[in-house]
Amino acid sequence: MIKTSLSLLLVLVAMSFTFGKYTPKTGKRNPQTLSRGWGDQLIWAQTYEEGLYWARSRNKPLMVLFHLEDCPHSQALKKVFAEDNEIQKILDEDFIALNLMYETTDKHLSPDGQYVPRVIFVDPSMTVRADVTGRYANRMYAYEPTDIKLLLSNMQKAKKLLKSEL
Amino acid sequence: MIKTSLSLLLVLVAMSFTFGKYTPKTGKRNPQTLSRGWGDQLIWAQTYEEGLYWARSRNKPLMVLFHLEDCPHSQALKKVFAEDNEIQKILDEDFIALNLMYETTDKHLSPDGQYVPRVIFVDPSMTVRADVTGRYANRMYAYEPTDIKLLLSNMQKAKKLLKSEL
Repeated sequence: MIKTSLSLLLVLVAMSFTFGKYTPKTGKRNPQTLSRGWGDQLIWAQTYEEGLYWARSRNKPLMVLFHLEDCPHSQALKKVFAEDNEIQKILDEDFIALNLMYETTDKHLSPDGQYVPRVIFVDPSMTVRADVTGRYANRMYAYEPTDIKLLLSNMQKAKKLLKSEL
Repeated sequence: MIKTSLSLLLVLVAMSFTFGKYTPKTGKRNPQTLSRGWGDQLIWAQTYEEGLYWARSRNKPLMVLFHLEDCPHSQALKKVFAEDNEIQKILDEDFIALNLMYETTDKHLSPDGQYVPRVIFVDPSMTVRADVTGRYANRMYAYEPTDIKLLLSNMQKAKKLLKSEL
């Protein structure tokens, strides 16, 4: 009898946990992450304003990754980007990281148009580094998955030039 | 002997999984969420630009929650906010949700100053609803945990007026 009551109590407690919290009509969702798959172990700025603030206060360049969930080029780049430990390490240690799916009001972030994927570096002095480009003349800030080593060397360039300019 | 080799193989496989992915020097981190504790089951806009876009395209008001991780008033409001199922439901179904720790460049979002916690409603017509206020004359858009029902009724107001204005 005591056992039955105890079981019932446990069931009731379990139910209150299940039904206690708000659940959307369409069912339970996985919480969205700020990384959006570009590096779950990194600390990401949420907004451009936040990224600029951290870039200035920590004297580190800001890396802005423009991408879209339904763009296969973005998704392909994201996969190799997230799996490249060298990129993840340099981004974590030497940069302020920001990934965006919506354009900002700052036109300097789209020197040759608003396309994805697009990688723009911003110096802690708030200067957009339009000189750090990929290999496509018509989309200078785009990278394909095969360009991942060029992206890494561009990160090293963005990091190095900053120091030499000090 | 076969057993030993098999165990060794398993250990090696486990090690490759552990060491394969980038881990920060300071140790493994929990991925940051966009909700930041204000409602893990909701869909959050990442930036103000994204929030405005969704507000316009879905014809729903945008609710902007300004807060800080190291502000006890923000944390106290967040706790009752996240646990209030009525608020979570109306926010999920009838609003575009955005929580920010950094100010935007839009001064309309700080009608009486930049303080936290601060809750601002923006109509899908892009008008900041400066008329939807809390109970403090010196900080008109601040809410204490005990004001949670006022916040709910303000959400109903923001939702209702929108329709009557159509």
